[in-house]
Amino acid sequence: MNYRIEKDSLGEVKVPADMLYGAQTARAVENFPIGAEKMPLEIIRAYGIVKKAAVLANYEQGLISIEKKDYISKAAGELISGELDEHFPISLWQTGSGTQTNMNVNEVLANRISQLAGVEMGSKKPVHPNDDVNMSQSSNDTFPTVMALAAVIEVEDFLLPVFDDLKKELAKKAEKYQDLVKVGRTHLMDATPITLGQEFSAFRAQITDIIEMLKDSLKYLKKLPLGGTAVGTGLNTKAGFAEKAVKFINLETNRGFKAAKNKSAGIAAHDSFVNLSGVLKTAASFLMKLANDTRWLASGPRCGIGEIRIPKNEPGSSIMPGKVNPTQAEALFQAAAQVMANDTAVNIGGGSGNFQLNVAKPLIIYNILQSIRLLGDSTASYNKRCLSGIEADQQQIAKYLENSLMLVTALNPVIGYDKSAEIAQKAFKGKISLKEAALELGYLTEAEFEKYVDPKKMTQANID
Amino acid sequence: MNYRIEKDSLGEVKVPADMLYGAQTARAVENFPIGAEKMPLEIIRAYGIVKKAAVLANYEQGLISIEKKDYISKAAGELISGELDEHFPISLWQTGSGTQTNMNVNEVLANRISQLAGVEMGSKKPVHPNDDVNMSQSSNDTFPTVMALAAVIEVEDFLLPVFDDLKKELAKKAEKYQDLVKVGRTHLMDATPITLGQEFSAFRAQITDIIEMLKDSLKYLKKLPLGGTAVGTGLNTKAGFAEKAVKFINLETNRGFKAAKNKSAGIAAHDSFVNLSGVLKTAASFLMKLANDTRWLASGPRCGIGEIRIPKNEPGSSIMPGKVNPTQAEALFQAAAQVMANDTAVNIGGGSGNFQLNVAKPLIIYNILQSIRLLGDSTASYNKRCLSGIEADQQQIAKYLENSLMLVTALNPVIGYDKSAEIAQKAFKGKISLKEAALELGYLTEAEFEKYVDPKKMTQANID
Amino acid sequence: MNYRIEKDSLGEVKVPADMLYGAQTARAVENFPIGAEKMPLEIIRAYGIVKKAAVLANYEQGLISIEKKDYISKAAGELISGELDEHFPISLWQTGSGTQTNMNVNEVLANRISQLAGVEMGSKKPVHPNDDVNMSQSSNDTFPTVMALAAVIEVEDFLLPVFDDLKKELAKKAEKYQDLVKVGRTHLMDATPITLGQEFSAFRAQITDIIEMLKDSLKYLKKLPLGGTAVGTGLNTKAGFAEKAVKFINLETNRGFKAAKNKSAGIAAHDSFVNLSGVLKTAASFLMKLANDTRWLASGPRCGIGEIRIPKNEPGSSIMPGKVNPTQAEALFQAAAQVMANDTAVNIGGGSGNFQLNVAKPLIIYNILQSIRLLGDSTASYNKRCLSGIEADQQQIAKYLENSLMLVTALNPVIGYDKSAEIAQKAFKGKISLKEAALELGYLTEAEFEKYVDPKKMTQANID
Amino acid sequence: MNYRIEKDSLGEVKVPADMLYGAQTARAVENFPIGAEKMPLEIIRAYGIVKKAAVLANYEQGLISIEKKDYISKAAGELISGELDEHFPISLWQTGSGTQTNMNVNEVLANRISQLAGVEMGSKKPVHPNDDVNMSQSSNDTFPTVMALAAVIEVEDFLLPVFDDLKKELAKKAEKYQDLVKVGRTHLMDATPITLGQEFSAFRAQITDIIEMLKDSLKYLKKLPLGGTAVGTGLNTKAGFAEKAVKFINLETNRGFKAAKNKSAGIAAHDSFVNLSGVLKTAASFLMKLANDTRWLASGPRCGIGEIRIPKNEPGSSIMPGKVNPTQAEALFQAAAQVMANDTAVNIGGGSGNFQLNVAKPLIIYNILQSIRLLGDSTASYNKRCLSGIEADQQQIAKYLENSLMLVTALNPVIGYDKSAEIAQKAFKGKISLKEAALELGYLTEAEFEKYVDPKKMTQANID
Repeated sequence: MNYRIEKDSLGEVKVPADMLYGAQTARAVENFPIGAEKMPLEIIRAYGIVKKAAVLANYEQGLISIEKKDYISKAAGELISGELDEHFPISLWQTGSGTQTNMNVNEVLANRISQLAGVEMGSKKPVHPNDDVNMSQSSNDTFPTVMALAAVIEVEDFLLPVFDDLKKELAKKAEKYQDLVKVGRTHLMDATPITLGQEFSAFRAQITDIIEMLKDSLKYLKKLPLGGTAVGTGLNTKAGFAEKAVKFINLETNRGFKAAKNKSAGIAAHDSFVNLSGVLKTAASFLMKLANDTRWLASGPRCGIGEIRIPKNEPGSSIMPGKVNPTQAEALFQAAAQVMANDTAVNIGGGSGNFQLNVAKPLIIYNILQSIRLLGDSTASYNKRCLSGIEADQQQIAKYLENSLMLVTALNPVIGYDKSAEIAQKAFKGKISLKEAALELGYLTEAEFEKYVDPKKMTQANID
Repeated sequence: MNYRIEKDSLGEVKVPADMLYGAQTARAVENFPIGAEKMPLEIIRAYGIVKKAAVLANYEQGLISIEKKDYISKAAGELISGELDEHFPISLWQTGSGTQTNMNVNEVLANRISQLAGVEMGSKKPVHPNDDVNMSQSSNDTFPTVMALAAVIEVEDFLLPVFDDLKKELAKKAEKYQDLVKVGRTHLMDATPITLGQEFSAFRAQITDIIEMLKDSLKYLKKLPLGGTAVGTGLNTKAGFAEKAVKFINLETNRGFKAAKNKSAGIAAHDSFVNLSGVLKTAASFLMKLANDTRWLASGPRCGIGEIRIPKNEPGSSIMPGKVNPTQAEALFQAAAQVMANDTAVNIGGGSGNFQLNVAKPLIIYNILQSIRLLGDSTASYNKRCLSGIEADQQQIAKYLENSLMLVTALNPVIGYDKSAEIAQKAFKGKISLKEAALELGYLTEAEFEKYVDPKKMTQANID
Repeated sequence: MNYRIEKDSLGEVKVPADMLYGAQTARAVENFPIGAEKMPLEIIRAYGIVKKAAVLANYEQGLISIEKKDYISKAAGELISGELDEHFPISLWQTGSGTQTNMNVNEVLANRISQLAGVEMGSKKPVHPNDDVNMSQSSNDTFPTVMALAAVIEVEDFLLPVFDDLKKELAKKAEKYQDLVKVGRTHLMDATPITLGQEFSAFRAQITDIIEMLKDSLKYLKKLPLGGTAVGTGLNTKAGFAEKAVKFINLETNRGFKAAKNKSAGIAAHDSFVNLSGVLKTAASFLMKLANDTRWLASGPRCGIGEIRIPKNEPGSSIMPGKVNPTQAEALFQAAAQVMANDTAVNIGGGSGNFQLNVAKPLIIYNILQSIRLLGDSTASYNKRCLSGIEADQQQIAKYLENSLMLVTALNPVIGYDKSAEIAQKAFKGKISLKEAALELGYLTEAEFEKYVDPKKMTQANID
Repeated sequence: MNYRIEKDSLGEVKVPADMLYGAQTARAVENFPIGAEKMPLEIIRAYGIVKKAAVLANYEQGLISIEKKDYISKAAGELISGELDEHFPISLWQTGSGTQTNMNVNEVLANRISQLAGVEMGSKKPVHPNDDVNMSQSSNDTFPTVMALAAVIEVEDFLLPVFDDLKKELAKKAEKYQDLVKVGRTHLMDATPITLGQEFSAFRAQITDIIEMLKDSLKYLKKLPLGGTAVGTGLNTKAGFAEKAVKFINLETNRGFKAAKNKSAGIAAHDSFVNLSGVLKTAASFLMKLANDTRWLASGPRCGIGEIRIPKNEPGSSIMPGKVNPTQAEALFQAAAQVMANDTAVNIGGGSGNFQLNVAKPLIIYNILQSIRLLGDSTASYNKRCLSGIEADQQQIAKYLENSLMLVTALNPVIGYDKSAEIAQKAFKGKISLKEAALELGYLTEAEFEKYVDPKKMTQANID
C-alpha cells in the first residue's frame, strides 16, 4: 500500500495514501484494535450536519472567511450525503468522549478540502482541521450533539414510520376479525371469550401508547449541548454561537432542535438517552409479547393451539419434511431481547460519568442505534412477512369455543358463582358439555342456557 | 392458637380465630411459603379505594342494596386508612395475576362486615366476598388497577416531593457557589475551569428533566383497566360501570384517573409500568453520578480531591480512628444500582405475558414500588444528611486552580493550539507554572498572559 | 419509651433502654431511614461465628484474657443461635462496607456481656466493643467474610438440598413416563416424537449440571479475607491470626474454609460473589423454562395443550367458576425473573469498587441472599405442590401423537426427504392422516408404513 | 448482476451466479433484512469442523460412499480455513434455531463440491445438501454443537492467552513495586498504607481466579448434543454416530469434547452458555475495576490523584492543548459494560426456550462471541498500550503518604483507639502532621512515634 506522512502534536504517522483521514485517525486505528464494531455511520453523517452548521454560525459571527465557509460547507455536505463514509475506520471502542471520531471528521474534511483546492493532503490548507473545522467546538459538546441528532433522526424517520405501519396492520386485523368470537386465555388456561379482533386491538392500543412515549422522549433529546465546548461553559465561543448553530441544524434537518440552556448537563450526563432507551425497551417488551402470542396462536399445526395460520416463508427444517416455523416471530423475539440487554449497557454507561464529562458516549450511542435498528427492521419484517399474512383458522377457533368451560361465567349473575362452578366441574369431570351438565343438574332450562350463554354477547360485555 | 373453620369451593380450611381473612387466604399462606416479601401494603390500601369505588358504582347502577353499599364503603375505608393491614399475610410470590390478594381483600372486607354486623365470621353475611365485594370485578382488572393507583400515588405524593426538595437544595448550592471558580475535569483529567455553582446547576438541570419525565410517564398509568373484568371485555359488568367507578376513585384520590378505552391491553400487558420503570432507572442513573461526584469531590481528606467537605454523621471505621466516610452517597449509589436491577425484572415480567393476561403482576409492582421507595428514601436522606451540609474547601479549590495546566486553553484564539500546547507541555515537564512557561517561551508578555488567562472569565464563556 | 445514654467518638446518643445495641447503631438507625430492608439475619448470625472464631484465635495468640474469651464466645454463641436477632435494626441501605453492622455486632456483644456480668450497659465493661470484640479485625475484612459464610451456608444447607429434591422428583417422573410416547415440539410446532420421560430427563440433566456449577462456585467463596483488616495487609493482627481464626470457623461450621492468600483482593472486590450470582441466574434460566413448560403442557383444560394435569391447590378465579391455574409455576417464573434482575445489581455492585475497598457490599449480599432464598423456596414449593402431583393425560397425548405429521421424518432414510415432504403436505392440506396420504401417493404399502412409522422406535433413536 | 436459478421445497429462487449458496440461503437473505449483524464467522468455521466430522463418522458407519466422504471433507476443510467465508450472507437475526445457517452451510458445501466435480451448481450432485452433507444431523443438534465449538475455541485460543498475558504483566508490576509504600484508600478516603505492588497483586489474584472460573465453565460446554438430531432422541442416526463424530471433532480440534449423554437437554436449553456468560460478566466486573482504578490513580496531572503515569498514546483533546486522557482504560470500561449487558440477553434467551428447542440460539451465541471478543481485544490493548507502560510517580506517592492521617491506626495497639482518634482529629483540624499532634498531646515521645508509625512495616502487617 502507498502511504503519506501526516503529523499531529505527538509526531509523524503513516497514513494510507488514498485515505482522507490524517494522523490522529491513523493513530486511533492503531490504538484501538478492539471488536468488529466501527463508529456508526449515523454518527458520521450527523457530524456533517454539525460541522456545516458550526461553520455557518462562525461565518455569521464574523469569525471565518467566506472562502473557508464555502469549502467547509461543501465538504460537510459530502459527509452528510454519505460520500465520505469509507474514511471513518475507527473502532467504536475508543475514548469515551468520542474524541477520536471528532478528530477523524476534522481531518477528513480538511483533507477533502485540500483535495478540492488542489493542494497537498496533510498540508492543513486552505482550512485547518482544529482551528477551522473544529472552530467554536470541542469533542465534548459536538459528540453528544451528534448522538442526539442521530437518535432523533433514526427515531423520527425510521422507527416511528415502521411503528405506524404496524399500528395500521394491527388495526386492519382488529377490524377484519372484530366479530370472530374465540376462547380467551388467562394463565394460559381457558377463560371467557373474546373476539380475535379484540385480541389484535389490544396490540393496537399498546403500539399507540408506545408511539406517544417515543415522541415524549424526543423533547429531551432535542436540547443540544452544542456551544458548551469542553465543560459546558462555552469557552472559546462567541456569544450566540449555540443559537445560531442550532438554527442552521434546523435548517438542514427541519426539526425543532434547541440550544440547551444548561450545556454542562448534556456533556456530563446523558439522561435523555437513558430515558430514550427506557422507551425502546418498553417497545421491546410489547414486541416480545406480540411475537410470543403470534407463535403460540400459530402453534401446531395439529398438536398446538393453531387458531391462526402464518405465511410459509421458507422450509422449516433440515430433517423434518414439510415443517413450517414462525421464524419472523422468533427473529422479532430475539431482537426484543437484545434491546432489553442494550438498555442495561446504556444504564451502566449513563450512571458512570464523573464530573464534567460522561465517558461512555460511544457505548451509549452504539446501543441506542442498534436498538432502534433492530426494533425497526425486525418489526418491519414481521409486519410484512408474518402479520399481514395471518389468517384465522375458523374451524379450530370454533371447536375450542364450543368446548370451553369458562362460558359458564355468564351464569354468575343468574344462578351465582357456586352453582356455576358446580356445572363447570361436572362438565370437566364427565367430559361433557356445559349445557349437558347444566341440564343434568337442573339449574336452568335449555332455553335459559341458550339465552345466557351466548359467547358473542359475552365479548360485547355488560349485563343488563 | 385458636382457629375457626372457613370454606371455599375446594373445601374447608382452618383460619386463625382472630384474623379477618378466610379460606382462600389461608390456603394461599400455605401454598406460597416463598421468600420474605409480602404483597406491599400500598397495594392493599389501593384495593380499599377500588372496592369502595366499585360498590358506589354498583349502587349507582342499582345492583346492590344501600345497606351492603354502606357496609362495604365503611370497611373499605378502614382498609384505606391502614387499620386492617395485619390481615394480609400472603407472600408476594404467588399467582401472577395477584388473584390471591384480591381474594384476601374480599374475604377481609366480608369478615370485617360480619364483625360490624355482629354475625359469625365466615358466614359471608351480610355481604358475600365474591358476589358483593367483588361485584362487577375480577382480579384481572382490579389488580392492574391497584398497581396503577399505588404507583401513581407513590410517585406523586412521595417521590416527586423528594425530588423537588433535591432540586431546591441543588439550586441553593448552585447559587451559593456561582462564583467559586475551580478546575473542571474531563476524563478525570484537569480541564478548563468551571464554577462550583455551575457544577451544581448541571445536577439541577438533570433533576428538572427527570421530574418532567416522571410526570410524562404518569399519563399512561392513569388509564385504568377497571371494568374489563376477566379478559377486558367487561363481562358481568353493566354498561357505564368503569366510568362511574373511576369517578369515585377520583373523588377519593383527587387525581385525574381515566377509564381505559382498551381494557384488554391493560390486563394483558403492562407497558405503562415498563415505561415508568424506564424513568425510574433514568433517575437512578442521575443519582448514581450525583453520589459518585459527591464521593470523589469529598475524597481525602489529604490524599484525594477534597474540594468539598461533607457532614460527619458517624464514626467511619472500626479500626481507623478519626475516619469519616461518604456513607450517604454510598447508600444512594447502592439504591440506584438496585433500581437499575429492578428494571430488568420489570422488563422480563413485562415482556412475558401471554394472550389475555400478564402473569408477572406481583413481580412488576414489587420492583416498581421498591424502586420508588429506595429512590425516595435514599435521595431524601442524602439531601438532608449530606448535600445540605456540603461546604466548599476554598483553599484546596484555589490550590488546584492555580496549578491547572488547562487554563492554557484560553490562549488558543490568541496564539493558536500548537503554541498553547507547547506552553502546557513545558510547564508540565518542568513542573513550573503556565505563566512561567509562557514567558520563558516568549509567546506573551506577562500583562497579556494575565489578561487572557482569567479563570473567572473562562467560566463565563464566550470570546469577543 | 425508656432510653439510656451511650457514647461514641462523635458524642452521646439516646438508645432504647431494652436494646442491647449502642451509640453507633442508634446513629445508624437515625442516619439510614432507607427502604424496608434490614441487614439480613444470615449476616448477623455469620458474624457470631466470626466473632467467636476471632476471640478464640486472639486467645490462642495470647492477646486476650481467658475471662474475656469466655464472655465473648458465650455471647457470640447466642448471636449464632438467633437469640439476639431483635437487636439489629439497621437498614440494609447503609455504608457500602457494612461498617455499621459490624459496629452493631460489636456493641450488642459488649452490652450482652455487660448484662451477663451484671454491670451497666454502655460501660464497655468487662469487654470493649472495639478493643476486645473487634480485636484483630476491621469491618473491611470481617464483612466480606460473613458475606461468604452466609452465602456458602445458604447454598450448601438450603439451596443444594432443594435442588437435590427437585432432581430426584424429575428422575422419578422420567422413569415413570419413560415409555409414554408423545409428540415433540420444536419452534412450538409439532416435531418428531419423544417420550414424556425423556422430556423430564432433560430437566434432570439440567439440574444435575447446575448442582455441579454451584459446587464449583463455592471454592472461590471459601477463601476468606479475614485477617486482612483495613486494606488487606493485616495491620494490627499477629502473624497466624487468619489461619487460626479460619480453623475455628471450620470447627464451628464444619466446612472447608481457607484463609485467602491475597486478602486485599477479597476486600477490594467480590468476583466470587459475582460469579456465584452468575450460577444463580443460570439456575433461574433453567427454572424459568421448567415453569413455562409446565404451564404450557398443562394449558387448557380444553383449549390448550393439556398433555399433563397439575394439582388444584386453590380456586383460580374470583369471577370464573371452576378455574384452576398453574400458580406454582407462575410463582417460580417470577422468582426466576427476580434472580436474573438481582444479578444485574450484583454486577453493577461488583464492578464499582475503587482502590482498596468495594463499597457495594450490602447491595451484593442482599441480592445474593434474596436470590438463594427465592430460588430455594419457589423450587421447593413447586416441587411439592406441582411437580410431584403432575399426571399425564394419556388420552390427550395419544390423540396428538396420532395426528402429528412429523412422524413422517422416519421415512427420510426410506423414501427420501422430498417424498416425505410431499406426504406431509398432502396430509396437512387434505386434513387426513399420514398413512392415508402415503398410501394415496403410493410411496409405501400399509405394512411398510406401519413398520417404519413407529413412534415408539423413533424415540429410541438410531436407524439400522 | 448475473443470477442462476436454484430450487428448494417451496419452489425456485434466483441466486447470484458467483455465490456458492443456494435457494434456502437466498430466501433467508430476502426474509431477514434485519440489523447489520451477520451470523458470526466463528460459527461458520465451526460448522466446517462438524460437517467434516459427521461425514467421517457416516463413512465409518458405512452410510456414505468414499467419494462423497472425500468431497465433503475437502470442502469442509475449505470452510474451516475461511476460504468460503464470503458465501454466508444471512443475518444473525433469523430463525431461533439457526436453521437458515445450517442450510447455508449445506448448500455452500454441496455447490462447492459441484464446482470441484465440474458439474452445474444447484444440481445437488455429486452430493446432496440435505441427504449427504446433513446426513445424521439436524439444525437442532448441529447448531448448539457449533455454538459450543466456537465458544470453547474462542475462550481457549483467544481469551485465556490474553488473560494469561494480563496476569503476567500484573505480576511484573506487583514485583516491581512491591516495596513502594503508598497511602491505601477505602471509601475513597485515606486509609492505612499499602504498597503499590500489593495493589497490583490484588488484581493478579483476581485474574488468577477468573482464569480458573473460565476453565471450570468449559467442562459444561464440552458436552456436545451432536447426534441428537431434531429433539435429542437421535432419530435417523445410527447407534454410535455421536461418539464417532465427536472423536473426529477432537481429532480436528485437539480438545476434550464429549458426546452429551442427554442430548435433549443441550438442544432444548443452553445452561452451559448462560453459565459461561456468567463468568464472562465476572471478568467484566474485574476489568471494570481495573479500568477505573487505573483512571483514578492516573488522574491529574495536577488536580487529581496522580500516583501513576500512563502512556500518552494520542492527543487527548480537540480544544485543550497538551491534554492526555486514559483512553485505553475508557475503552476497557465500555467493553466491560457491554459484556454485562450482553449477559442480560443471554439470560433472557436462555430462559425463554420451550419444550424440545430453545429458539434464541443466534441471540445467545452472538452475545457470547461479542463478549469474548470485546473482553479479549480491550484487555490486550489495555495491557499493551496502558498497563505495561505504567510508571509510579514516586514524588506524588511520597507526598500523600507523609500527609496521611490514617497512619495513626498503627498506634491503636499502643495507646488505644480513643487517643489515636484524638491525635488524628487534632492533626486534621490544625492542618499539622500526626507527629506534631501526637507530641503536642503528649501521648508519645518522638522516638516512640517513629518506632510505631512506620508505614513500610504497616504494609507487612502483623503486630508482635
